Amino acid sequence: MVRERVDETELLQIEDAGEAVERVEHAKPYHRYLEAELGPRNHWFPAFFSQELAEGEMMNQMLIGERLYFKRAGGKVYAVEDRCVHRGAAFSSKPECYSTNTITCWLHGFTYDVRDGSLMEIITEPGSRAIGKMSLRTYPVEEHNGVVFVFIGDLDPPPPLASDVQPRFWNAGLKFRPLHRHLIRANWRLSCENGYDAAHIYAHRNSAIVTDVGVPMPLGTYAPDKSSVLVHENEDDSPKGVVKIMGDRPGMKTDVNVWEAEIEGNRIVAQNVDPANPPPGVDLDVGLFLPCGLEVDWFPQPGMIHFEWYVPVDEEHHMYMIIQSRYCETEEDERKFHEDCENFLGPLVWKEPAGQTDYPGDGSTWGFNNFDQFGRAQMEHVYAKEDFWNRERLTKPDYIIVRWRMLAHQHMRGIQKRGGPGNWANTGPWDPAKAPEPVNLMRTPGSGNGYKSAHI
Amino acid sequence: MVRERVDETELLQIEDAGEAVERVEHAKPYHRYLEAELGPRNHWFPAFFSQELAEGEMMNQMLIGERLYFKRAGGKVYAVEDRCVHRGAAFSSKPECYSTNTITCWLHGFTYDVRDGSLMEIITEPGSRAIGKMSLRTYPVEEHNGVVFVFIGDLDPPPPLASDVQPRFWNAGLKFRPLHRHLIRANWRLSCENGYDAAHIYAHRNSAIVTDVGVPMPLGTYAPDKSSVLVHENEDDSPKGVVKIMGDRPGMKTDVNVWEAEIEGNRIVAQNVDPANPPPGVDLDVGLFLPCGLEVDWFPQPGMIHFEWYVPVDEEHHMYMIIQSRYCETEEDERKFHEDCENFLGPLVWKEPAGQTDYPGDGSTWGFNNFDQFGRAQMEHVYAKEDFWNRERLTKPDYIIVRWRMLAHQHMRGIQKRGGPGNWANTGPWDPAKAPEPVNLMRTPGSGNGYKSAHI
Amino acid sequence: MVRERVDETELLQIEDAGEAVERVEHAKPYHRYLEAELGPRNHWFPAFFSQELAEGEMMNQMLIGERLYFKRAGGKVYAVEDRCVHRGAAFSSKPECYSTNTITCWLHGFTYDVRDGSLMEIITEPGSRAIGKMSLRTYPVEEHNGVVFVFIGDLDPPPPLASDVQPRFWNAGLKFRPLHRHLIRANWRLSCENGYDAAHIYAHRNSAIVTDVGVPMPLGTYAPDKSSVLVHENEDDSPKGVVKIMGDRPGMKTDVNVWEAEIEGNRIVAQNVDPANPPPGVDLDVGLFLPCGLEVDWFPQPGMIHFEWYVPVDEEHHMYMIIQSRYCETEEDERKFHEDCENFLGPLVWKEPAGQTDYPGDGSTWGFNNFDQFGRAQMEHVYAKEDFWNRERLTKPDYIIVRWRMLAHQHMRGIQKRGGPGNWANTGPWDPAKAPEPVNLMRTPGSGNGYKSAHI
Repeated sequence: MVRERVDETELLQIEDAGEAVERVEHAKPYHRYLEAELGPRNHWFPAFFSQELAEGEMMNQMLIGERLYFKRAGGKVYAVEDRCVHRGAAFSSKPECYSTNTITCWLHGFTYDVRDGSLMEIITEPGSRAIGKMSLRTYPVEEHNGVVFVFIGDLDPPPPLASDVQPRFWNAGLKFRPLHRHLIRANWRLSCENGYDAAHIYAHRNSAIVTDVGVPMPLGTYAPDKSSVLVHENEDDSPKGVVKIMGDRPGMKTDVNVWEAEIEGNRIVAQNVDPANPPPGVDLDVGLFLPCGLEVDWFPQPGMIHFEWYVPVDEEHHMYMIIQSRYCETEEDERKFHEDCENFLGPLVWKEPAGQTDYPGDGSTWGFNNFDQFGRAQMEHVYAKEDFWNRERLTKPDYIIVRWRMLAHQHMRGIQKRGGPGNWANTGPWDPAKAPEPVNLMRTPGSGNGYKSAHI
Repeated sequence: MVRERVDETELLQIEDAGEAVERVEHAKPYHRYLEAELGPRNHWFPAFFSQELAEGEMMNQMLIGERLYFKRAGGKVYAVEDRCVHRGAAFSSKPECYSTNTITCWLHGFTYDVRDGSLMEIITEPGSRAIGKMSLRTYPVEEHNGVVFVFIGDLDPPPPLASDVQPRFWNAGLKFRPLHRHLIRANWRLSCENGYDAAHIYAHRNSAIVTDVGVPMPLGTYAPDKSSVLVHENEDDSPKGVVKIMGDRPGMKTDVNVWEAEIEGNRIVAQNVDPANPPPGVDLDVGLFLPCGLEVDWFPQPGMIHFEWYVPVDEEHHMYMIIQSRYCETEEDERKFHEDCENFLGPLVWKEPAGQTDYPGDGSTWGFNNFDQFGRAQMEHVYAKEDFWNRERLTKPDYIIVRWRMLAHQHMRGIQKRGGPGNWANTGPWDPAKAPEPVNLMRTPGSGNGYKSAHI
Repeated sequence: MVRERVDETELLQIEDAGEAVERVEHAKPYHRYLEAELGPRNHWFPAFFSQELAEGEMMNQMLIGERLYFKRAGGKVYAVEDRCVHRGAAFSSKPECYSTNTITCWLHGFTYDVRDGSLMEIITEPGSRAIGKMSLRTYPVEEHNGVVFVFIGDLDPPPPLASDVQPRFWNAGLKFRPLHRHLIRANWRLSCENGYDAAHIYAHRNSAIVTDVGVPMPLGTYAPDKSSVLVHENEDDSPKGVVKIMGDRPGMKTDVNVWEAEIEGNRIVAQNVDPANPPPGVDLDVGLFLPCGLEVDWFPQPGMIHFEWYVPVDEEHHMYMIIQSRYCETEEDERKFHEDCENFLGPLVWKEPAGQTDYPGDGSTWGFNNFDQFGRAQMEHVYAKEDFWNRERLTKPDYIIVRWRMLAHQHMRGIQKRGGPGNWANTGPWDPAKAPEPVNLMRTPGSGNGYKSAHI
């Protein structure tokens, strides 16, 4: 397909959002985004929650195709590659260490200092001439508000962490509560877009938050024009992102909320709502920031800020993390917040799929965000296998999505690729904890597969 | 391998069937057939049985690599692609509709008229400027004798359905009974050939029809020469096929039936038979017609016509459908026919594999046609992975198979290919009903994989 | 990566083993070995143990990518390809025969003489003109000391079997006991190297032989210099291999045994040992011979010779065989030897993985060699997918491994490749005994996936 050549600047000047989407859909002025199947490079990514790793412990996690190994030593978390330089065994397949600052490979005793990755000793050849000549790749790590972040890239020093985190993450007075961290089968870009998607609220219309809690939720909601979409792209270290403003603000049109529709004479009406007298729109900001973080101020209740990440793992998996926050003035506030998360907000957001007996996404056995995972898996197939990056047809509510794509295209610091000498992401999916089992081949004479003679 | 250049016309003039097979084997004058891994294009295919879809219901089925979605509305079955034009979600993963003639995508509320595929409304953006500009691909559908047929191709109007159905399907007085419809792992061509194969009867020699019912079945049966093979290839809209005539007919030699053989002095004799006084050969016609349908007049009993289809699904799967028919003069005849199918003929033909405890294909736990499925799966590997389209070595009984290949080569209206703009079959295997489950990554400190220190 | 050009002869003259490893690591003077992913060609390989195949029985085994079918007829074992020339069915998927020297294909009755592979009769077309024109590929077979060996290659006559078997296999007075034969997921080269690896003994430091039997085992052991490594590469038919001499021998330095090490001030000491007064090193020879056989004289007890093979099956699987031998003078000796293997030595070497509840490799639920399988599976991933044949960093104890690679490079008689006319290894993994099951597609109206209308 020959694409229309479009001047991006000109394109951004089209006033009507619906027309802009149509033009962008043909021009696709975001080819770096389309190439970033494995994620952006030279960014900070959240890796896991602080509470998951106690002093002296190790754990592994694959991110943007690289296999990382973490150890907490003297309170601080360090990260190295999860692969001994000698014969490539994964440390995580049988974790070993003999001292605070080291890890040891279980296969030949190669022992490294996690602080700088250097080979410190080889237990099977003490004093080897290899000591001082070999080392593991290391990764910068920072830890804030219960989240461990890691920088994956080639910039030294790395850019400030804050440039890659949603801005409200640093707000004073917020207390944080990890809700879940899951591996999901879908490309990270589809998940960023789904999390930010204005129109997908329709798919949640029978979720527990509507059916059990009674919240009035519109069938759709979208920006009436470009004035209610703010783009953060200052030429400094501040985070880059696109923010959709819902609700009444000076100089902005309020969001369009759809409360009813009609199909062949049948009316479809949002639950818990009288469409003749609809509730006011919600007044909140939803922002999507590089590399892959969402921020909703507020959600699910006023006074709460909801953070999500869709971290690339490999081409067809991402790590889905949700951390909830709330402004707490007293310890009692904070205790209450954690209690609410435990009893109410957590399960509303996420339930383990084993017990999902309802029709997909509907009713109380599905978490709100579980069904997003379902939707992403559905899109993954057509985007990965049926050329939907080119086939998709977008409409006006998708304006924030194409704007996000253009921003990512412009501001990703690099694109992660497999293979190549300086590049470590040359692995396929691999779980070091799951070594394939041997198959017994020994045959017992007289057994079936050695059949003696045919019968007629 | 350099292939001998052969004039096809000359080849067809070789009188001896065995010699013809040898020549054809080298020349392979059917390269379009060899290319048709994904099936022929521009043909009618059976999709499912009428009884499977009630008024107002929807169902999906992949055929020749295209994902179709069916709805019965006002009695009539319509077919569209199973993929929303917007973000590609499969309708079938969460079927929704709000009116007789529409389907709605569960993800963003895009609503289409199934009669012409047009986008009628978007529930999340009523009155969108996209309405009237987008539509789903539609497929012509016809329904006869309890079978729903769909046309997949680019001809508009499509050729008459009857040109793609076995001719006796329209015989007056026949009543029909669906026996089964299964997804089988084998390329459609191997299954056409196996269903039609003269010599594979050997593999059925210990089937229940022989061991339990006592039918005398030869070890092999084949056409003595080309006179007993009729080729239907008139230059009109009549079905194209190859028919093997078994039994005594004017101007034809009767089929050769093998009742015994000898290996290193050991005699092998067909069951239920005295080879010194063998039964007469059966008098029946077996025909294989484009695109992929078999017709046996009669089977398994005189007065019955047996129809099978081997519909391409993807490169390594086909849909195996069997419908049984019988001439019925009275309602009592018809009632009796259905009762026989229920109690006796159905299970003889097909049993669910869970209970197959016997040696493959032998005895009463295997249906006759289950074992054909076993044989096809065995051939699939060598044809797909070990170049058996070139390595195979054929013999005289295979004459009808090479004749079928030449006919298909000549008369397929197109070859289905993956990818390309006008071509919709660019999918890998995918079951929209089976979204992959998320994997919980959250770690509990102190758990095994974060081991604190090695012990010596 | 541009590799340093190195004169191999010069390289072998570097005196210091550690320096030699460093030089070899860069030069990689063993490119034929790196190409031999699927194994060497034109060699004898062990296929299974004699006791597994009784008179008249058949069995199959894939080796170096070729699918072989074995039959014992008149006491002698014959081997042919496991694939009928006609339509490619695997004999092993439903074994049939009607006489001593034949096998019959279950699908169309093609019957072959296993002694020369010739097509002897077709049961479905007796007296076919194809008889005498078609035949199966055959493979030379020899059987000694309870092991069935097969030659895979193009040399006719093949070289003597003894040139491809570890030399002590023929020692007078030895009695043999098969311990196990398993399919393992790892390339054959990694398994040869792991079996021979000096330093991997560290990984066994908590194995049952140490924890339960109390054997003092060093943390590491390696050749102090090249004088204790013997290379067998006479220009005659004698086996080609590399032998590491451990213990005191005239003109050789004894092996270095590591009994303790220190990491950040923490001492690591081998179990069952006082490092101030360490036991003497063991006095034994460990040799690795082409194509893929290990010989340990002695192991696990003096007077015993231990044989292992790592036979290539496909690119990512090998067959792991262990046969134990012991010098026995009397029948009572022999009876006792078998009893010891049954009760004690066998389980120490290998346990079925179902019961492995301990931390990998540690304690009594793991066989010594089970854990080697674990280690190979770990290396397989990085060598196959993450370029570790180039990334690995070797050290002095690896000298015997690089010496083995250079010997194999020099003396393999061929390299097995997939595809190509004269080459039979053009198959992917395939187990003829496991035909994929059909999937029932028939729908019941009113069932969930055909949902009638959406609810709001």
